[in-house]
Amino acid sequence: MFENKQNPLTPLSEIGEFGLIHRIKNAVKLQQPGTEKGIGDDAAVLDFKTYKTVVATDMLTEGVHFNLGYVPLKHLGYKAVTSNLSDICAMNAIPTQILVSIAVSDRFPLEAIDELYQGILIACNKYNVDVVGGDTTSSNSGLIISITALGQQKADKIVYRNSAKYNDLLVVTGDLGAAYFGLQILERENEVWKVNPQVQPDLTAYDYILSRQLRPEARVDIIKLLDKLEVQPTAMIDISDGLASETMHLAEQSEVGFHIFEEKIPMDHQVIHAGEEFKINPAMAALNGGEDYELLFTISMKDYDKIKGNPNFSVIGHAVSQSEGCHLIGRDNSFKTELNAQGWDAFKKYKSEMKKSQTTEE
Amino acid sequence: MFENKQNPLTPLSEIGEFGLIHRIKNAVKLQQPGTEKGIGDDAAVLDFKTYKTVVATDMLTEGVHFNLGYVPLKHLGYKAVTSNLSDICAMNAIPTQILVSIAVSDRFPLEAIDELYQGILIACNKYNVDVVGGDTTSSNSGLIISITALGQQKADKIVYRNSAKYNDLLVVTGDLGAAYFGLQILERENEVWKVNPQVQPDLTAYDYILSRQLRPEARVDIIKLLDKLEVQPTAMIDISDGLASETMHLAEQSEVGFHIFEEKIPMDHQVIHAGEEFKINPAMAALNGGEDYELLFTISMKDYDKIKGNPNFSVIGHAVSQSEGCHLIGRDNSFKTELNAQGWDAFKKYKSEMKKSQTTEE
Repeated sequence: MFENKQNPLTPLSEIGEFGLIHRIKNAVKLQQPGTEKGIGDDAAVLDFKTYKTVVATDMLTEGVHFNLGYVPLKHLGYKAVTSNLSDICAMNAIPTQILVSIAVSDRFPLEAIDELYQGILIACNKYNVDVVGGDTTSSNSGLIISITALGQQKADKIVYRNSAKYNDLLVVTGDLGAAYFGLQILERENEVWKVNPQVQPDLTAYDYILSRQLRPEARVDIIKLLDKLEVQPTAMIDISDGLASETMHLAEQSEVGFHIFEEKIPMDHQVIHAGEEFKINPAMAALNGGEDYELLFTISMKDYDKIKGNPNFSVIGHAVSQSEGCHLIGRDNSFKTELNAQGWDAFKKYKSEMKKSQTTEE
Repeated sequence: MFENKQNPLTPLSEIGEFGLIHRIKNAVKLQQPGTEKGIGDDAAVLDFKTYKTVVATDMLTEGVHFNLGYVPLKHLGYKAVTSNLSDICAMNAIPTQILVSIAVSDRFPLEAIDELYQGILIACNKYNVDVVGGDTTSSNSGLIISITALGQQKADKIVYRNSAKYNDLLVVTGDLGAAYFGLQILERENEVWKVNPQVQPDLTAYDYILSRQLRPEARVDIIKLLDKLEVQPTAMIDISDGLASETMHLAEQSEVGFHIFEEKIPMDHQVIHAGEEFKINPAMAALNGGEDYELLFTISMKDYDKIKGNPNFSVIGHAVSQSEGCHLIGRDNSFKTELNAQGWDAFKKYKSEMKKSQTTEE
């Protein structure tokens, strides 16, 4: 593809590591008052004043977390940022800065990195977050993205996973299951495309679930809304692995159990339709699909009136005693089944994929 | 190798991502008063009080930054930490916390990850640094390590690269070039071993240069010493890519030039001997070899007496005007040659290695 004279692509080795750093530095605009020094020295210097510093990190690897066959680089950059900011939100904190490290193999031209960074910077701009550092290097295989996000919050506003109380209400933001079905659509269309690259599919009917998979948002708006409503969650986590797995994290760390009512789980109508199409119970996608990046939190009963009727929130259950465990209750009490975490596990997923590919090869 | 009944190795998929997180969490001991919450929630919570927060990140990829053929995993873990802490030191700050992300392919058993983490924790323990978060995931190829380090310092003590002044003295800590020759020895012995795995080489004569390559230290001691001596550097950087490249960074950002005197560059006698053995000018190893992780800084003339005669410091040159540029001056003024940055560049190195391997394959 380097032969294309009209639109020649630039090998990364041509501009080198320092060239790439300069390029990124020039594209970054700092917005946070707490960023005293961004890219360009040995380290960034930040001022969190009287706030606590909240910090989280995530690593995404090609072929495990994303498939460039159907995920555009710009979306990947955007999602890499928002999925990280979501961890900061899950502490009831406001994200302020990120550091971005990428390793790329020789098959990526400069233009690909530019696209990835475009997505990163669009997300940073939207969320008012500064890129203050990072590393760019080569890898012997695919693309790896590692992002560290920092945020801030007053000491008494930070929310951990371990402080849900018996009888607290379990609340989730937005709706669930869409990211999972978005991925099913992308994988299906990718198979179709492999057979016939001429097909131009009409994906309008799936626009919402596709955007939830490709361009998830971090619920910084919810953190601000909770502050405005004067609701202080008692425990909080973000939904990256699925509602079941995250509920069990809250339960384990808070030493409580939970009842979740199936009919209360918020799902978009596209999720319901996709469930019918793929013959998958949409509630199962919500429970085990993951990547929705909504917030799951508990509040004291006394705060119920503050969120009642607010379309951003769904009360889906409540905390019970630890000995009762975590259960999903069916419509009209039709069933009561123990939750189990079939959420996303990088190593287990990898193992099963390896098995699949070995089986295919045999 | 999983067939070995005596000492069976454990595939990572057996304990899964959460199992591995638990294992790491249990191995970590928190020591920093500013660490309010470490591993185990969506993010860590830190308190930097009236200090500024300093943050840096680095990514290491197998086959580019390290070769597991001759680098033990425990040393790799140690070095991954210290090379990052070195960036915090280069701001004249004290490192306090790190976040560690690793991606590993299926060929690494649990025991390999344990060894890597042993090295990481030995370094953290030595430097009184807390592991407060990270990510563990799988990759489709080799091992990737991404570390983010945080540190703290009072506002008026932080030192940037851009504030060296005309006539300031250029000072380096420790000695240079050893890490480069350590790598030459490791690569040579690896070739010998490939031909004859029975050979047990006696590497006693190279112990210092090998330890400098395998187990470099971060000069936190120097940051404390400078504070004690009441020396405030005017500009500072750490030597990861080589003296020439780092000097040019200081020059560019501070808008000055530098004269470096070859005879003043501190080198261990093992570096001199290795230079003779490999027929490489040891000063060239110091200038372009990199990975020494010493500190390079400028001080005002008036501070000279405070460091004079101190074995930790070598004054190797001084700042001149920007128009004079950066030069190396030979012994007895025998030559004056312009510095150029042939330091380590991940993409350029990769390109040249690719070329080499393509040539070999032809």
